[in-house]
This record gives sequence, C-alpha cells and structure tokens, in this order.
Amino acid sequence: MINQFNQFYHSTIPHSTIHIFQLPIPIKVLVIAQCFSLMPVCGIYAATAQGLRFSWRSWRTWYSVLCICSLSVDTIFTINMTAHSLLDVRNVEPIIFHVCNLLGFCVFLQLARKWPTLMRHWAAVEQQLPPHQNWKQREHLARRIHQVAMLLLSLSLMEHLLSIIAFVYHDLCPSRRDPIDSYLFATGPQLFHLFAYSNWLGWLGKLQNVLLTFSWSYMDIFLMLLGIGLNDLLTRLTCHLQHAVQQPMPEEFWTHTRKRYRAIVELIYEVDDAVSVLIIVSFGSNLYFVCLQLLKSINTMQSTVHAFYFYFSLSFLIGRSTAVLLFVSSVNDAARDPLLQLLRQVPHAGYSDEVSRLASELSADNVSLSGLKFFSITRKLFLSVAGSIVTYELVLIQFHEDKKSWDCHTQQPLN
Amino acid sequence: MINQFNQFYHSTIPHSTIHIFQLPIPIKVLVIAQCFSLMPVCGIYAATAQGLRFSWRSWRTWYSVLCICSLSVDTIFTINMTAHSLLDVRNVEPIIFHVCNLLGFCVFLQLARKWPTLMRHWAAVEQQLPPHQNWKQREHLARRIHQVAMLLLSLSLMEHLLSIIAFVYHDLCPSRRDPIDSYLFATGPQLFHLFAYSNWLGWLGKLQNVLLTFSWSYMDIFLMLLGIGLNDLLTRLTCHLQHAVQQPMPEEFWTHTRKRYRAIVELIYEVDDAVSVLIIVSFGSNLYFVCLQLLKSINTMQSTVHAFYFYFSLSFLIGRSTAVLLFVSSVNDAARDPLLQLLRQVPHAGYSDEVSRLASELSADNVSLSGLKFFSITRKLFLSVAGSIVTYELVLIQFHEDKKSWDCHTQQPLN
Amino acid sequence: MINQFNQFYHSTIPHSTIHIFQLPIPIKVLVIAQCFSLMPVCGIYAATAQGLRFSWRSWRTWYSVLCICSLSVDTIFTINMTAHSLLDVRNVEPIIFHVCNLLGFCVFLQLARKWPTLMRHWAAVEQQLPPHQNWKQREHLARRIHQVAMLLLSLSLMEHLLSIIAFVYHDLCPSRRDPIDSYLFATGPQLFHLFAYSNWLGWLGKLQNVLLTFSWSYMDIFLMLLGIGLNDLLTRLTCHLQHAVQQPMPEEFWTHTRKRYRAIVELIYEVDDAVSVLIIVSFGSNLYFVCLQLLKSINTMQSTVHAFYFYFSLSFLIGRSTAVLLFVSSVNDAARDPLLQLLRQVPHAGYSDEVSRLASELSADNVSLSGLKFFSITRKLFLSVAGSIVTYELVLIQFHEDKKSWDCHTQQPLN
Amino acid sequence: MINQFNQFYHSTIPHSTIHIFQLPIPIKVLVIAQCFSLMPVCGIYAATAQGLRFSWRSWRTWYSVLCICSLSVDTIFTINMTAHSLLDVRNVEPIIFHVCNLLGFCVFLQLARKWPTLMRHWAAVEQQLPPHQNWKQREHLARRIHQVAMLLLSLSLMEHLLSIIAFVYHDLCPSRRDPIDSYLFATGPQLFHLFAYSNWLGWLGKLQNVLLTFSWSYMDIFLMLLGIGLNDLLTRLTCHLQHAVQQPMPEEFWTHTRKRYRAIVELIYEVDDAVSVLIIVSFGSNLYFVCLQLLKSINTMQSTVHAFYFYFSLSFLIGRSTAVLLFVSSVNDAARDPLLQLLRQVPHAGYSDEVSRLASELSADNVSLSGLKFFSITRKLFLSVAGSIVTYELVLIQFHEDKKSWDCHTQQPLN
Repeated sequence: MINQFNQFYHSTIPHSTIHIFQLPIPIKVLVIAQCFSLMPVCGIYAATAQGLRFSWRSWRTWYSVLCICSLSVDTIFTINMTAHSLLDVRNVEPIIFHVCNLLGFCVFLQLARKWPTLMRHWAAVEQQLPPHQNWKQREHLARRIHQVAMLLLSLSLMEHLLSIIAFVYHDLCPSRRDPIDSYLFATGPQLFHLFAYSNWLGWLGKLQNVLLTFSWSYMDIFLMLLGIGLNDLLTRLTCHLQHAVQQPMPEEFWTHTRKRYRAIVELIYEVDDAVSVLIIVSFGSNLYFVCLQLLKSINTMQSTVHAFYFYFSLSFLIGRSTAVLLFVSSVNDAARDPLLQLLRQVPHAGYSDEVSRLASELSADNVSLSGLKFFSITRKLFLSVAGSIVTYELVLIQFHEDKKSWDCHTQQPLN
Repeated sequence: MINQFNQFYHSTIPHSTIHIFQLPIPIKVLVIAQCFSLMPVCGIYAATAQGLRFSWRSWRTWYSVLCICSLSVDTIFTINMTAHSLLDVRNVEPIIFHVCNLLGFCVFLQLARKWPTLMRHWAAVEQQLPPHQNWKQREHLARRIHQVAMLLLSLSLMEHLLSIIAFVYHDLCPSRRDPIDSYLFATGPQLFHLFAYSNWLGWLGKLQNVLLTFSWSYMDIFLMLLGIGLNDLLTRLTCHLQHAVQQPMPEEFWTHTRKRYRAIVELIYEVDDAVSVLIIVSFGSNLYFVCLQLLKSINTMQSTVHAFYFYFSLSFLIGRSTAVLLFVSSVNDAARDPLLQLLRQVPHAGYSDEVSRLASELSADNVSLSGLKFFSITRKLFLSVAGSIVTYELVLIQFHEDKKSWDCHTQQPLN
Repeated sequence: MINQFNQFYHSTIPHSTIHIFQLPIPIKVLVIAQCFSLMPVCGIYAATAQGLRFSWRSWRTWYSVLCICSLSVDTIFTINMTAHSLLDVRNVEPIIFHVCNLLGFCVFLQLARKWPTLMRHWAAVEQQLPPHQNWKQREHLARRIHQVAMLLLSLSLMEHLLSIIAFVYHDLCPSRRDPIDSYLFATGPQLFHLFAYSNWLGWLGKLQNVLLTFSWSYMDIFLMLLGIGLNDLLTRLTCHLQHAVQQPMPEEFWTHTRKRYRAIVELIYEVDDAVSVLIIVSFGSNLYFVCLQLLKSINTMQSTVHAFYFYFSLSFLIGRSTAVLLFVSSVNDAARDPLLQLLRQVPHAGYSDEVSRLASELSADNVSLSGLKFFSITRKLFLSVAGSIVTYELVLIQFHEDKKSWDCHTQQPLN
Repeated sequence: MINQFNQFYHSTIPHSTIHIFQLPIPIKVLVIAQCFSLMPVCGIYAATAQGLRFSWRSWRTWYSVLCICSLSVDTIFTINMTAHSLLDVRNVEPIIFHVCNLLGFCVFLQLARKWPTLMRHWAAVEQQLPPHQNWKQREHLARRIHQVAMLLLSLSLMEHLLSIIAFVYHDLCPSRRDPIDSYLFATGPQLFHLFAYSNWLGWLGKLQNVLLTFSWSYMDIFLMLLGIGLNDLLTRLTCHLQHAVQQPMPEEFWTHTRKRYRAIVELIYEVDDAVSVLIIVSFGSNLYFVCLQLLKSINTMQSTVHAFYFYFSLSFLIGRSTAVLLFVSSVNDAARDPLLQLLRQVPHAGYSDEVSRLASELSADNVSLSGLKFFSITRKLFLSVAGSIVTYELVLIQFHEDKKSWDCHTQQPLN
C-alpha cells in the first residue's frame, strides 16, 4: 500500500523538471490593459511571479492616476448635466455608465497593489499541485485563455466601431453640420453643456469615452480569465485523483490531498477578497444595461442600420454577461461535486477517517467567488437572474399588447 | 448473521433464470419515432441492448439528416418572413416553434449516437439489482410505460386534428377560396412569403409542420419514459431493503447496497449528461407556449369552436408540461428520502460504519436530472414555476379589470 | 449511570396508572362536523381509539354521500352558468368556491376511512411517550384545543351572519321585491339561471351554500388542531429530555429516545399522507380568496355597512389563513431546532455514537407537513407568501396612483 | 501537549486583572433614550451589570407609561382621521407611522423588564471569553460603538431639522397665515380634524411627532449596537483560536472551546427572543417607507429645496436601513464561516472527536438574529430585499416611460 502511495505521491512532485508557472492573466492581455491605464503593475515581463511589484512612483501608476483624475472631472460634469435637465430616474444612464467604469479604474488600481502578493500565492499553490498529465493539456489551457481574451477584445472593438458607423452614417437628427462634429458633440454632451463646442474638446471627450468603454469590457474579461484559472487548478486535482480512488490508499495520501485542496480553497478566498468589488461593479452594470436595452427594444427603431446595430449590441451584451457568469461560476462547479463523486467511489477498505473528514468538509463548504458575500456566483444564479429579466420583459410586452385588438388582418396579409 | 446476509444476497442474483432486460423506451415507441425520423438507431428489434448500434451509413440516419436539412431551410424562411414583417418581440412565436423543434431533431440525432452505450450501461445496472419480486410487478412496469406513451401520443394526435378542424370549418377571414387551400396557406406562411401559392408546396409545408409538432410531443414523452425507468430502478432497491433494515445485517451487505445505489446514481448522471439539452429545450418551449397561450386567453374568442379548441389545447399543454415535470422529478423523489427513512430504522446493533457512510452520502448528495445543471428537476420546482405563471396572469387580469367599474348591473342581470 | 437511566426510563412508563388518550380532534368538534355531514366515522363517543370504525353502511356515510351528490349537481349548475356568461378568467370565483369545498367533502369522506387506523397509531405513539409532567399541563392542552376550535367556529358563524345582514338590509340594487327573496335569489344564481324562482329552491340553494361555507372553515380548523396535536407530542419529548442532557446518560437511554422520536416522525409522515390533499385545497383556496378580496379592496365600497363587512371579512380571512399556516408549521418548528439545541449540551463524557447518530439524523431530515410534497409548511413559507401578496398589492395600488397628480389640495383640505 | 493547552487555557482567564465589562449599549446612548422615555431601566450608571434593575415604581417607568398613553390617544385620533377621509390603501401612511413607533415604545418598555437579566447573562458570557489581546483592541470596540451611535443620532437630527426648514420656508400651499402655525397645523392634522387650531395644541402635536421620530431612529441604532456587540464576542473567540489550530491541541482544549462557543450561541438566542419583535417592527417600517418614498420619487418635486430635502431624506433612509441589516447580519457572518475555516486547518494528529463534533455542529446550525423566526437576518437577505425593491421600481418607471415616444428632440436639444 505504501508503494502505491509513493507512486502517486512522487508522480506529483517532479524534482528535476522545471515548473513553468501558468498564471491566469497572460502578458499580452496585461500589456493591452496597461495601454488603457488599467492594472499599473510593474515587471509583467518577468519570468516568474517573483518579478511582479507595485510602486507608487512608477510611470504606469502615474498614468493611471492621471486618467482617474480626468475621468472623475468628466463624471462630475455628467452629474452636473443630469442635475440640470429634468431630474428623473431614467436620465441616470450616463451617470451610471461613468460611475461604474470610473469605479472599475479605481478597483484596478487598488488591485494592482495586491496583485504581486496574490500571484506569488497563486504560483506557490500551483507548484504544489500535480502537473498537467502531458504537454498538450498544459498547452490547451494557455491557448484557451488566449482565445477567450482575444475573442472578447475583438468583439468589443467591433461593437464600438459599429456604434460609430451607425451614428455617423445614419444620424437622423444631426446636431451639427459635419457628421463627425455631430458625433463628437453627441459623445460628450456633459462637456458641451458647459463649454462651447470645439474640435479638440470633442476628441478629448471621445478619448475618455473610449477609456470608459474599454474599462467596462476589461472587467468582464479579467473575471473570466480568473475563473478559467481557478477552475483549472481544481480540475487538475480532480483528474489526478481519478485513478487513486479505485484502490485503497494509505491515510497519508488523503491527508496530503486534503491539504492541497485546502490550499486551493484558501487561494480562492483570497482572490474573492481581492475581486469582490469588481464582481459587484461588473455584474451590476451588466444587469442594469441589459434591462435598459430591453426597455428600449420595445421602441420602434429609427432605421435598419440602427436596428442591426441595436440587436448586435444587445446580443453581445447578453452574451458577454452570460459568459462572465458561467466562467466565474465554473469555480463553484469544480469545487464540490466532481470531488465528492470521486470520494463516493473509495472502497470500504480505504475509507479512512481522513476520507470521511474530507467528504464532510466538501459537503458543508460552499466554495465560490462572490459579490462581497451578498451573493455566491453559482450556475443556479444564472437562472434566477434570467428568470427575473424575462418576467420583467413579459410585463413590458403586455403593456404594448393591450392596445392591439384581435384582428385577423393584422395577423396575416390577404393574398 | 452471515446466513441472513446470504439469504438476502443470493435472493438477488438468481443464477439459473434468464434475466429479460427492461429498457425504458419500448420498441413500439421507438418505431413510431423513427417513422418521424427521430432517434435513428439500428437494431431496435434485437433481444438485448447489445444489438443496438448507430451508423452514419444506415438509411435511418440518412432519413433523419435529410429531414433536418429540409427543416433548417424552413426555419431560415421563417426567420426571413419575421424579419420582413414589423420587427417586434411578439412576432417571434413561429421562430421559437421552429428553432426549438429543429433543436429537438438535432439532439435526438446526437442522442442516437450515445444510445447504444447508454442502454448497455442501463442493462448492466439493472442486472445487478434485485429482480422484481414477482412476475406481476414486472408486468406492471411494462404496462405503465406503454400506457403513458400511448395516452400521450393519442392526445397529441387528437389535439392536432382538432386544430385542423377548428381552422378549416370555422375560418372567419379566409385567405383563399378553398378552405383546404386556405388552411395550407396559413400553415406555411414562411413559404408563401417567398413563392407563389401552389398546392404541392402547401402539402410540403404541412408535412414539415407535422414533423415539428411530433418532435415537440415526442421530446416530452421520451423524458417521461426515462423518468419512469430510473424511478423504477431506485424503487426496486428500496423495496428490497425494506425487510433488511428491521434486523442487524453484516457490514458486507451494506457495502454491497452502497455499490448498487452508487451504480444507479452513476447511471442517472450519465442519462443526465445525455438528455440535459433535451430537458432545457422541452421545458423552455413548454414554458414559453404556456405563457403565450395565457396571454392570448384574455382576448375574446372568435367563435365557440375556437374557444373549445383553445381551452382544450391549453389544458393539454399545461397537463403535458406538468406530467413531464412530475415524472422527471420522481427520480429525485425516489433517490433520497425513501432510502434515508429506511436507514433511520436500522437498529443500534447493525449501525455499522457503512450504514453511517451511506446515510451521510445520501443526505449530502442531490441526485436528480437537471437542465444543464442550471436547475435541478425536483417536485419543488413545480411550485416555483407555477407561482411565477400565476402571478404573471394575475397582473394581466388586473390590467383588464381596471377598465370596469363596480356596477351592480354588470354583476348580475335583473330578473 | 444505570440508575440514572432507570430513573428516567421508569418515570416514563407508569405501569399502574390508567393512560387516558388525548386525541387531536375533540369529540365536540367531530359531532358538529358530522351534523354538516363531514367525517362520517362511527364510534366517536368510544372511550379509546379502538372504538372508532368506518362503515359504508352507516347512516353517517349515507348522509355524507347524499350531500356530496347534491353539491356535485350544484357545482355542475355553477359551471353551466359561468360558461353561458361572458367566458372570462374573473368569472370563475363561484366555480372555485364550489369545486374547492366539494373537494373538501370528498377528502373528508376519504379521510374518514383512514381515520380509525390513524388514530390507533396516534394513540400507540402517545402511550410510548413520557406522560405530561402533571395534571395541569394535560388539562392545558385539552383546553387549548377546545378554545381554538370554538373561537374559530364562532367567528365563522359571525362572519356568515354579517354577510347576510349586509346584503339583506343594504341591498342597493335588489333583484326581487322582498329582501329575503332577493337574498336567496342572489345566493343561488346557478339555480335560477335554469329554473324559475321559487321559495323552496331558494332555501335549498342557501342550505347548500351553508354546507360549503362550513366545509371551508372546517378544513382550516381541522388542520390547526392536527398541528397543535403533533406539536404537543414533540414538545413533550423535548421537555422530558431537558433534564437528561445535563448529565452523561447511558447509550440505551439515547437508543430509546431515538426510537421514540422516530415513532413520532413516522406518525407525522402518516398524517401528512392522509391530509396532504386537504392542505393543498385549504391553502390554495385561502390564497385565492385573499388575493381576490385584495383586488376588490381597491374599488370604492357601496356603503359603510358594506365597507365594515368587507374589512371584517378580509381581516378574518387573512387571520384565519395565517393561523392555519402558523399552527401547521409549528410541527416543523418543534421537530428540529429545540431537540438539536438540547443535544448540543450533552457533555463530552455522554456523547456516545447514538447521540451523534440522532444529531446527524435531526440535522439532515426536514420533518414537516406538506402540500403533496410540493411545498413544506414551515414558518419561512409565511414570509414568501406574504411577500408575494404585498408585491402584487403594491403594483395594483400604483395603477390607481398614476391617475392622481401631485396637488396640495388633494393632500389636505384648507382650513 | 498538556503544556500547550495550559498555556492557551490560562492565557484566557487572567486571575489577577480586573475585567471591565463592555456592554453593547453605552451609557450615553441609554441616557439619551431615557430622555425620550425609552428603555426605562434603573441603575444605568452602575459600574457592573449587577446594578441594573427594573421597577414599575421608578419615575422613569412612569414617564414612559405616560408617553405611551398620550401617543396611544394620538394614534386613535389618527385612525379616526383616516377613517373619515376617503378610505383608501394609500392613506394609511400616518397610521403606519404612528402604530409602528408606538409599538416601538411598548417593545422598549417590555425590553426594559428583561434588560437587567439579559445584561447579566451577557457579562457572564463575556467574562468566560479570552480578553482582547491588548488595550487598543478593547478601546477600538468602545470607540466604534460610540461613533456609530453618535453619527446616526446626528444624521437623524439633521434630517428632522431639514424637514422643518423645507416646510416652513418653502410652503407652496400654506394652510395658515403664519408659517410656523402652518407647520404645526400640518404636523398634527389628526388633532385639528377634531379640535379647532390653537397654538399649544400645535406644540403638543409637534412634541409627540418628535417622540415618534426619535423612537423610529432609536430602534435602528439599538439593533446596530447589539449586532456590533454580538459580532465582537464571536470575533474574539475566532481570533483566539487562530494560533491554536496550527498545532495539535488536547481534546480538553476543544471541549472548552465548544462550551465557550455554545455559551455565545445561547446568548444570541436569548437576545433574539428579546428583540425579535423590535426587528420585525424596525425592518417592516423601514421597508414600507423606502417603498413609499420611491413611489413618490416619480412625482415632480415642488421646488429645488423640496427636491434636495427629498433626496437627502431618501438616501438617509436607505443608508440607515442598509446599515441596520448589515450590522445585524454580521452576527451570522461571524458565527459560522470564520470558525469553520479555522477548524479545516486542524492537523490530522489533533483532529479529535471534539473537533469533529464542533465542526458538524457549526455546519448544521444556522445562528443569526431573526424576525420572530419568520426570516433569518443574513447578508443574503439584503440582496433579495434590494432585488424586490428594484424590480418594483423598474415596473413603476415603465408606466411613465410608456407615455413618451422616441423623439430625438427630447433626447438632446439642438445647438
């Protein structure tokens, strides 16, 4: 029995091979984020997590702080504009857009300070884990992370370009003679509420708008990648156990497994502490904008181009929100049931106290990322959120339905 | 004590009798399904599950693929028609009908590939179980499966015929002179939106409509029969234990019971993996159409025949949806509480570690079929779905109520 | 230690004293029910539960069957009347009143058949339990049951009389010249839809109306008394343990306690099987009528007398519904937490395997009465039902609010 | 191992240092409350909890009873006034304000009777606990309690003054010539509905209004402070364990820990029994007034001053309600997960039966304050309440949205 244990145990900590750390956010994505002044952490090109550090005196941090200041002023202008228009609950859309994404910038600055420690912890946990069974699996994870990040970034870019095209080429009620002027004017109403229109102010407004839009997308991408990373740690542990449960293993094996599992759970709690505010901001703004767009979807569209843009934008928004929820909830999916199912197969002879302890801990704990512990992010959350949105939409439809009578001519045109 | 164990143990695996496999979907139902090009699996007449196989080169598969292609084209026509009418959230009814049922066809094709393996696993699990206590019980299950299948198929047929009658004989605003032409024209608006009316195109549209309608009914029937089958496996195990719990049994007996129970649970998870998408499609479309029909129920009916058809159709829809939910949730009902209640009766002398392990596993696990793990299908789901629908309906009624004043003449006619 | 056990054990089964059975439904209440043809069980005056029996040939059964037939005809008349009026979802009120209460009659007939066995089981469980600690406690229970039953019956009677007074003396749009004729006419519209008005037919309609109304009240009273009875069994066991947990008790003591607890739980499950349909009917009709009355509460009242009657009736309805829910859920309150709290106090020395088993069984099981297992009746159910009703009401109020503008003259009259 | 235990054990009960009791409600707050006739308990200046007592013959009690009588009369006047206006569900606002806060007075009188016993129990539990690790931590708690209490009291005062200013200086439709007369007249409409206006009656009405308003704020403050106090007890236990779990401790250590934990839980249950009604009243009135104010928020404001007051008042109300919920739910947060996480780290060698017992008790129990057990107050409650309010608000907004068309001129003014 000891032999079996050794065989399993030693297979998991190879002494002579170099372990390359696989961190959740790839360098490419971090570089792009830093271009937009998010996550101002230094040493992202370093080979290991040890190289990461945060400094208030780095130019990255200065750049980020500058952007935050500029956006804060913009947000105050926006609040001022809204306060001077008809004070109404529906007019808050630009305020919410500004405040949420500005919050995003602040949270990422805050996160950059914790990031080096967190990544070192992550690397330490990963090193303890059994390695991927072969080179392919490892490659697979890295490729998947890149694909998700690139797909999301491209779609966001495309959506943004489409919104420009829809406005510039099909502006039905232009506010300026030149379509580009008109567009810039519409992008920064909070500025031109106070100042006269000038071209450079228009471009500044547009720049800030781009920063805010990127921040919004990046929050979602960031959460997805973290979800994929944590899920992979748990999956690797489960895969490794798959063969061990068929035969009776010594108690030390299970003590060792429990400690590894506990290490991952502690890491998940630490990540949760770090990104909880981000989760609240990201989920809240996604939910708000999905509801708002659905509200608008009942109105008749101005033109086919607007309709196409509108439905593309709505689908992208819903798709992205769903994807964040599913990737983040995959941590919860992988943390409990697959491991419990394996423990159920442990034969009677190998069912030691440690297995029993691990099983009872697994069934009692609720391991998941959360929104400041107000809600756990699980697969079942999706249904309750979707259900609420659908109910809400059904009530809205009925308001409009009411005005129509049951008339066969409106149902189908006579040939 | 060993004697007792032997007595129980040996009674459960009779060496000399031939065990006839009882699979969940009877041959008759499979044949009907294959007539409508669903579930193109070969060897359904074979005596055992070993005979089942799937081949891409079978004519059944070809027939199925052909139907899917034809229906896909039809679905595209439907989307095209809707996109050219007033783009509106309520006009999506035909799209949802087409997409859901087309998805049904695809899922069944996919399922046909897994079916032989799944059924062999099922047969293996069933063989391990204690046999039915007598010939009658066995017969009872088979008869029940047939009855449910035949009742549902007949009612679906009847509902479809009624819909034809209601339309053909009571068409208040005919679009063609001949009532049958008019009916065919109304059945395939997506075709005649593109092509001029011709008789054979009308019949083709009707054929596709029949295929889609059958697919919709068959999804529900299929899920019900699976629910009955899995429920029977669990019930058989429970019945068998009923006598064993009164007296102290040796530990091996409980190890053996736990393994049997685990085997059934593994089978349930495998079935869940195979039919999860089907469950989502079936439950989603049922919910959508129930809500839609309730929305329509507020309108005044065109004639008594239409009213009769409408309420018959609505009752059938609600009844069928309820039946699917109850049959599928019966798996969850049988998997936990009845077994736990039995374990509570095990006397102190026989309460070994294995009993304790089985009890804690039973109370921690949540065994049920699910909709892609977004929701577990349990008896309590029924109430929350029904509650949402009723609340929704109450709000709708209130909209209409508002226009009426409290006037005694409208309450009751004076004599 | 054995001495302690003996002391506790023997104190619980007094050999020489006569144990008088305390059954949940007192004789007086059964007699009143039988006057209204409910619960046709014989031998209710017998000293013990052994005397109870059910016979199809008893005059009580014949009387009950006769009433059911008569009411069924009345229900068919009601459905016929509704079908001939404007077919509308709001017109179903009389149908629901008839169908629910007719169902009540059928359920009570069905229950009468199981009643003798159930009461014998109840008596057997009660005899096993430690007796009430003194004569006063015992008396207290009996008095409480009587008080609840009598209070509810009196209030129901009063509400019914008030409804007659409100109608007869303040009928604003009388349908007949004589106010009593007018009242009888309004009570049985389903009869006079088919037949010409005649006095005796009016009285027959009134009689049936009284039977149905009584059945409605009696369902609630019956469930409350069962709740009180089961709650008392559990409380008695808990009280008895209160002293035992402070000191280490031998394992047999806990085996014995577990068996007693299990016996009560089995009884609760048996009662649940017997009255589940009753619970569904009672809760469903209460919920329906509460919502309906709240809907009506927005309308302006015809006169002060009507307003007084209306609010009295509404308060009574809400109060009665709440009381049923609380009394029935008290079974769940008493079944888990108080016992678990006691087990937490068992000292380390006395924490044997049996205590651990009892504790884990208590925390895993969910013991409560239920509505056909669709919902468990617990204290938390109250809030979710009340929350739904309040939300619904708030939406209704808003519909009316909308028509009013913010005008200081409507807020407060100028002096 | 025994040495380690002694080291931990003795560190926790210092024999020679004087233990100063830290009770949850500081003296200053109690004095303020007694000025407003709440909590009439004697001996609040005493050094220990032993000095507290309640007497019906104390002048504090007389003062409190007098206020309750006076307010009861006022409440009856209010009900009378509402009953004479249009009987309508929306007119109940003053009734609910009066009844809730009058209930508050009664509950505090009732609570004053239990207070001395409760505080002695609290002091006893606290003495058993390990002391704060240093003087600073202790100071920190005391300062935090004072800060929360003072901040809330100041904000309440400010809100009340603002309401007076908004009315007196910007009364658009004055009911009397003198603005102060007009204000007093508006504060006590229930009095001037019966009596002619006189100045002293106006001031009496205002005095009663101040008492009721204070009672409303004080309920919330009182609950927050209790939450902070109970949370601190649990946190202190957790902090103390943090070092113990890293090394194997003897079984007695865990027995001792379990008893301490159990003592805190018993105290929480006792506090819950005492303040459950207060929780219901406080949460219910907060919820009602938040919904009501949101309803009003859709109306156009009379003037900027009114708008400012309105939004300040709404934010304060929402903020205060949220704070109560979070502080009270912090008891639940601290009672389960932090302790369980620590137990997960206990090494295999030290995982005795007592640790296992404590872990299973922790995972099975649901320790929290509650509203008469109808709902437990946990962090997750916040989301479900907030979700309901937001949904409700969204439906309201849509009612108003409907009347607007999609018109570019309303979106943005042409330059």
